[in-house]
Amino acid sequence: MRKLPGLSETHIDHRAYPPGVAYMDGQYLPMKEAKLSVLDYGFLHSDATYDVVHVWAGAFFRLEDHLNRFFRGMEELNLSIPYDKAQTREILHNCVALSGLKSAYVEFICTRGTSPTFSRDPREAENRFIAFSIPFGSVANKDQMEHGLHLAVTDVLRIPPGSVDPTVKNYHWLDMVKGLYAAYARGADTAVLIDGKGNVSEGPGFNIFVFRDGEVSTPIASVLLGVTRQTVFDICSGMGIPCHARDVSVEDLKGADEVFVTSTAGGVMPVTRIDNKPVGAGGVGGFSEKMMAAYWEMHNDDSFREAVSYP
Amino acid sequence: MRKLPGLSETHIDHRAYPPGVAYMDGQYLPMKEAKLSVLDYGFLHSDATYDVVHVWAGAFFRLEDHLNRFFRGMEELNLSIPYDKAQTREILHNCVALSGLKSAYVEFICTRGTSPTFSRDPREAENRFIAFSIPFGSVANKDQMEHGLHLAVTDVLRIPPGSVDPTVKNYHWLDMVKGLYAAYARGADTAVLIDGKGNVSEGPGFNIFVFRDGEVSTPIASVLLGVTRQTVFDICSGMGIPCHARDVSVEDLKGADEVFVTSTAGGVMPVTRIDNKPVGAGGVGGFSEKMMAAYWEMHNDDSFREAVSYP
Repeated sequence: MRKLPGLSETHIDHRAYPPGVAYMDGQYLPMKEAKLSVLDYGFLHSDATYDVVHVWAGAFFRLEDHLNRFFRGMEELNLSIPYDKAQTREILHNCVALSGLKSAYVEFICTRGTSPTFSRDPREAENRFIAFSIPFGSVANKDQMEHGLHLAVTDVLRIPPGSVDPTVKNYHWLDMVKGLYAAYARGADTAVLIDGKGNVSEGPGFNIFVFRDGEVSTPIASVLLGVTRQTVFDICSGMGIPCHARDVSVEDLKGADEVFVTSTAGGVMPVTRIDNKPVGAGGVGGFSEKMMAAYWEMHNDDSFREAVSYP
Repeated sequence: MRKLPGLSETHIDHRAYPPGVAYMDGQYLPMKEAKLSVLDYGFLHSDATYDVVHVWAGAFFRLEDHLNRFFRGMEELNLSIPYDKAQTREILHNCVALSGLKSAYVEFICTRGTSPTFSRDPREAENRFIAFSIPFGSVANKDQMEHGLHLAVTDVLRIPPGSVDPTVKNYHWLDMVKGLYAAYARGADTAVLIDGKGNVSEGPGFNIFVFRDGEVSTPIASVLLGVTRQTVFDICSGMGIPCHARDVSVEDLKGADEVFVTSTAGGVMPVTRIDNKPVGAGGVGGFSEKMMAAYWEMHNDDSFREAVSYP
């Protein structure tokens, strides 16, 4: 008989992970130690909700909005954690302070969790809370921030609201990943997906905006109600610029004067090419530049910032 | 200034997990030690494919079919692992043998994995392979196997093929979980989802079949091409019973003489109530009983079984 391999006691993981600090089960841990059971239904069924908030220059930006969305998402999915909003806020502050990061990407997650019997009934699972603070990341790199992203309009259908509520932030990204590979194959940086009516929806991790004839529009359906998206509405309101959530067709997108995308991971990011053609006059437009400047300026507003107390 | 909590060196997990053995990174591990980084995109983007095969009476059933589906799924998603089919097969055999389980639920997974920089570009991630063997589980419990499942027909739309290819086995289950909670609220055991045309698609972990006037039908679109589904086709073919993959309307389902569902987790399982009304004459039907018997009988067929060498 063939000899069986031996059983190891603990997992040895040789991979490298980014620096940072995570919170799980009452412990603060180095990022490389933050691991969840492969039996967690947050993994095996992507049965989870989450949020991402960023820290910039040592302060959270719009943390209250991210916390509210997270707690609403848990309620929608019948998930719960043993922390209220104030306690969750404190955990996030601790993660960032312990990580020492002045610019951080802070994710917090509630998964369906596990049951000791691997029950298929989600009501029998013990939900799990995880939070972590790692270095700030962006959808667009430095060069793309300067010269603009190249976007591919794909025919990939964003998972429709009748299947999964896009306003409850979730990890169902295989449509996004399919869009990304399609975009790469066409020489683009990232992708935009379409909704059930053939209109523009959103891309991998971002909302999309078009600027034309002095007005701003963004898709109304099949999209996450992004906090950065809301920030653009707020900025437009302050500027006296009309900003509408409405159906945005592919023609609207391609015929725009300017296009930009928004994400907690990067803020407002310009798009200067779509399907290999320049947007508007080409180059990063004047309105997009104003919007980017206003976005970062808002980080100094005390009604949106919450300073972290570092050790 | 407020005192910061300390940083722990390693995660202490007090949860109980089912017995079993997992394989990761060249190691065989007790199930409770099988953990993946919370930064793995298989978790954070549900960017993964997998398969589940079962072991019954000490032998795999249709392992070749499950392996083929898994390798095709990886190709579709641009995922790869450093093992060929023969090596993967050996790992699965080892997991089962080391777990000592004569009836096992054996899952094998390829995730997008991680990149040291947390790059958002899936091409920069190192993919990850995980396999595990835990006790055999079933969609239906003993009582439900005897008396039949109570199914709720929900209006939840199964994630459509235009978004995510259902033939590539994936973890996008929030639609299924929504269906489950809707079913529980109506006093049912589990749910069936609908496709974009309002026809029946599939339920949480199973395909569905209707038997009427001596013919068998199962939904053709928006479904996983289940190995147990294929087994029903094979059994029908052997019995000389017509079996069609076609559009199955909610009326077809409710007007059936008999209904059953199929899954690697449980095999062929009878449905005797739909939305609080009995199916056909009520009780588990004669054809369903024949199908269940034929399914388990097939486990003795050497062309489908592959014995595990236990220590």
